[in-house]
Amino acid sequence: MTEPAVASSDASNLAMTAERDGDSWILDGRKWYVSGVLHPRCRYMMTVAHTDPDGPRHGRHTQFIVPVDTPGVTVVRNLPKFGYFDADGHVELAFDQVRLGDDAVLGRVGGGFAIGQARLGPARVQHCMRLIGMAEQALRLMCERSQSRETFGAPVSTRANVMDWIAEARIDIDAARLTVLRTAWLMDRQGDKASAPEMSKIKVQILRTATTVLDRAIQVFGAAGVSDDTPLARWYATVRSLRIADGPDEVHLMAIARRELRRHEVSS
Amino acid sequence: MTEPAVASSDASNLAMTAERDGDSWILDGRKWYVSGVLHPRCRYMMTVAHTDPDGPRHGRHTQFIVPVDTPGVTVVRNLPKFGYFDADGHVELAFDQVRLGDDAVLGRVGGGFAIGQARLGPARVQHCMRLIGMAEQALRLMCERSQSRETFGAPVSTRANVMDWIAEARIDIDAARLTVLRTAWLMDRQGDKASAPEMSKIKVQILRTATTVLDRAIQVFGAAGVSDDTPLARWYATVRSLRIADGPDEVHLMAIARRELRRHEVSS
Amino acid sequence: MTEPAVASSDASNLAMTAERDGDSWILDGRKWYVSGVLHPRCRYMMTVAHTDPDGPRHGRHTQFIVPVDTPGVTVVRNLPKFGYFDADGHVELAFDQVRLGDDAVLGRVGGGFAIGQARLGPARVQHCMRLIGMAEQALRLMCERSQSRETFGAPVSTRANVMDWIAEARIDIDAARLTVLRTAWLMDRQGDKASAPEMSKIKVQILRTATTVLDRAIQVFGAAGVSDDTPLARWYATVRSLRIADGPDEVHLMAIARRELRRHEVSS
Amino acid sequence: MTEPAVASSDASNLAMTAERDGDSWILDGRKWYVSGVLHPRCRYMMTVAHTDPDGPRHGRHTQFIVPVDTPGVTVVRNLPKFGYFDADGHVELAFDQVRLGDDAVLGRVGGGFAIGQARLGPARVQHCMRLIGMAEQALRLMCERSQSRETFGAPVSTRANVMDWIAEARIDIDAARLTVLRTAWLMDRQGDKASAPEMSKIKVQILRTATTVLDRAIQVFGAAGVSDDTPLARWYATVRSLRIADGPDEVHLMAIARRELRRHEVSS
Repeated sequence: MTEPAVASSDASNLAMTAERDGDSWILDGRKWYVSGVLHPRCRYMMTVAHTDPDGPRHGRHTQFIVPVDTPGVTVVRNLPKFGYFDADGHVELAFDQVRLGDDAVLGRVGGGFAIGQARLGPARVQHCMRLIGMAEQALRLMCERSQSRETFGAPVSTRANVMDWIAEARIDIDAARLTVLRTAWLMDRQGDKASAPEMSKIKVQILRTATTVLDRAIQVFGAAGVSDDTPLARWYATVRSLRIADGPDEVHLMAIARRELRRHEVSS
Repeated sequence: MTEPAVASSDASNLAMTAERDGDSWILDGRKWYVSGVLHPRCRYMMTVAHTDPDGPRHGRHTQFIVPVDTPGVTVVRNLPKFGYFDADGHVELAFDQVRLGDDAVLGRVGGGFAIGQARLGPARVQHCMRLIGMAEQALRLMCERSQSRETFGAPVSTRANVMDWIAEARIDIDAARLTVLRTAWLMDRQGDKASAPEMSKIKVQILRTATTVLDRAIQVFGAAGVSDDTPLARWYATVRSLRIADGPDEVHLMAIARRELRRHEVSS
Repeated sequence: MTEPAVASSDASNLAMTAERDGDSWILDGRKWYVSGVLHPRCRYMMTVAHTDPDGPRHGRHTQFIVPVDTPGVTVVRNLPKFGYFDADGHVELAFDQVRLGDDAVLGRVGGGFAIGQARLGPARVQHCMRLIGMAEQALRLMCERSQSRETFGAPVSTRANVMDWIAEARIDIDAARLTVLRTAWLMDRQGDKASAPEMSKIKVQILRTATTVLDRAIQVFGAAGVSDDTPLARWYATVRSLRIADGPDEVHLMAIARRELRRHEVSS
Repeated sequence: MTEPAVASSDASNLAMTAERDGDSWILDGRKWYVSGVLHPRCRYMMTVAHTDPDGPRHGRHTQFIVPVDTPGVTVVRNLPKFGYFDADGHVELAFDQVRLGDDAVLGRVGGGFAIGQARLGPARVQHCMRLIGMAEQALRLMCERSQSRETFGAPVSTRANVMDWIAEARIDIDAARLTVLRTAWLMDRQGDKASAPEMSKIKVQILRTATTVLDRAIQVFGAAGVSDDTPLARWYATVRSLRIADGPDEVHLMAIARRELRRHEVSS
């Protein structure tokens, strides 16, 4: 979305292996929801593969830079989120005996996990910032529409349930913004790695906030809300998908809980 | 969806007027989310228009049967629900000086509201039955997927939060089914009109249940849940849209509350 | 509450053992939240004890009928629920070398689990019926109060958020009633044991419904709602406590989920 | 609670009038949930009364300092919150022809509203800080108990639903703390009055957070959670009551929504 010239795969749940063959690496496997591959200017893809599946937990992966026209690389299909297809693609890719040289290795062999972590942190914060903007726009649209739309002789904005939605949106968005700002400040002061737990927290908090605000904005708009006459339905599809991508809510919640439980450990 | 040969417009929030001109009626206005018009066998549309805008509240509307190729009728566009377009269409229609004879009137002039009510009740119950089936299928998919998908070395189905989702789905679907069965039984015994308040209740109850079950099934599936590899995302779009169509939740809740408040009226 | 002449302990989470000593049983241990002991007419207590701790899972327990004035039985204290003490008592009991004869055994030795299960089912349904009545009364009070109480120049009952609460209460209470009726009907037809899974469902469904309805009724009443000028706060304490007593929600949800997962088993 | 030597009435929904009689004021009316009156060192009460009921909206009230032993002042009863009575009292007071001199007026006649607002702001922030501490303690207790309590052979802390509760508590408490800190910073920079909208927000946000955290901590504790063996049930009663005292949630949400709607006004 922001840098289409290099496609990336955040959802590496389909296996990809890279095996040594003489001076080359042979990559085999599948990826899906790889972003940006269909952008007309996309020339290279970044992908992670298992180079040492039985090695130490954080040393099994290596990152590769792969030219899109490398023989053996196939775009299987473009994948939708709800009914929306991204023009730049969230594609399923097949790697069939893809041969790469050592110059394709990004960083060092076995350093793929570290690179992924280094990229994910700042990317997550950037996502969260964008989501706050999205939620703010949805709140603005909800306010405008509820004032201009009348039902039973009064603007929708005078109904106490709609007012509750608007107020709760204001409270939750402001709280989410403060949490993101604090996380960004922590990253500047103590580095990305030490700030990782905060990133889990903002991801859950902001996506939940944005999902609820968008859902209620859609309800205020009525049929227009699920159509493409407003950006709300498309945003909803994006936000709902992000609660799965890059670690589903449940994985982040588990990580947060484990850390909290350690803080209050009960000696046996 | 079930009877595409006659298209119908449930969302009459865009104005349509029918004015008398000699022996004819002249219809002008717009409709949207009209279902079935694009079905290859669709020949007639049913539409409601204001024939007496200042008349008594329930005598202002008349229903018309309109051949789809009547001059002045234009399909403006097909409208999506969360990115999904229905092959049979949920279209926006423009009526521009559409001339119809008296034989186009369905029932009697001024009787449009009564016809609408008569059609809506049974249709609503049928929708609810279908939604229960949809929720059951989503629950089945969630159960199967949670047993076959492993994360961190154990099937997702062993996690207590996912088990809570499954149990809550079972409880809510069963409760919704009983409510629908009771409503259908009431309709058989006391007629559609007397059963109208029950229909408001089942619409809200079942749509909320189905929305939650689908959302959680999507979460259990991960990225596959928002793709088209399962029916879940498309079903979600349908269900979410139905919380707006045919009277949004808020209108039904208001009607239910008014009736309840009257039962416990406080004499002043 | 209904039969104070025999006190009973539903919360057997504190250990109680019964060991054979000649012709006698010696009971030792503690119980808490034992109901009815302080009723002036209470003469006997029913208690369950481990008679064969290492025996087969459902054969470890035996039920005993214990005269309240048996030497070694002490009422340690009356226990509150959210500050409320029941006049008949929810007490903590200590059994210190309490000697009983074989005539104190209810049913047969090792049959305590079966007796407990036989008692729990019907008792649970009866609880649920009472909770529905409680929720109905809370809804009635909420309707009356919201009509008589004015804020900012209009009755609270005209506010859309309060109307939503009233309508949701009506929907949920009616759904809960149907579920209870169906369960009672099943018990009559197929017996208590086969109906056990249904009992888990109604317990969770009705307690959640009643908790929400009471909480919202309290909010409509304002300060009077948390005082003793209405029965709402006391009812809330009862209902909230029942979400823990007799198997917390989470245990029932787990049982429901397991059964549902088995219905959709995935062969490996 | 913090300064029992002067009792105060926050819930002035029962009418109190002060009429001029020669050089004196005659106070008549009732107050309830007046805090601190029963403290052994309480000597004075602060109360607000209507001195100009038909005057300009913010000039109708006057604050008075009333010695507790003034003739005509009666403590009617101590009022509970759920089943809890505060030793220092939340009492109902009757004022029957209570005669006071001009020296009893706090500030100036007609300035009562302004004094109330000036006091409420900082008090609200202080309440919120205390509530955050309470929620933190509840989270700590929940972590400790869930690690030491085993069900079905594993600590409760290993169950994913309980882990979700713990993680959500961490997220919500941290977000609430940031919001309070920001509000306190705004009060220091721009004064209490300009910060009033922020105070509405923190009141709603923190009370909802604390209510949920306490409710879940109670569930983790089981029967001990509703007893007085932990502080949780008493804290719950306090927190739930605060969602009513000092402006119920709904009033604050309405104020927040109105302000937000004005930001996005639609010119007609």
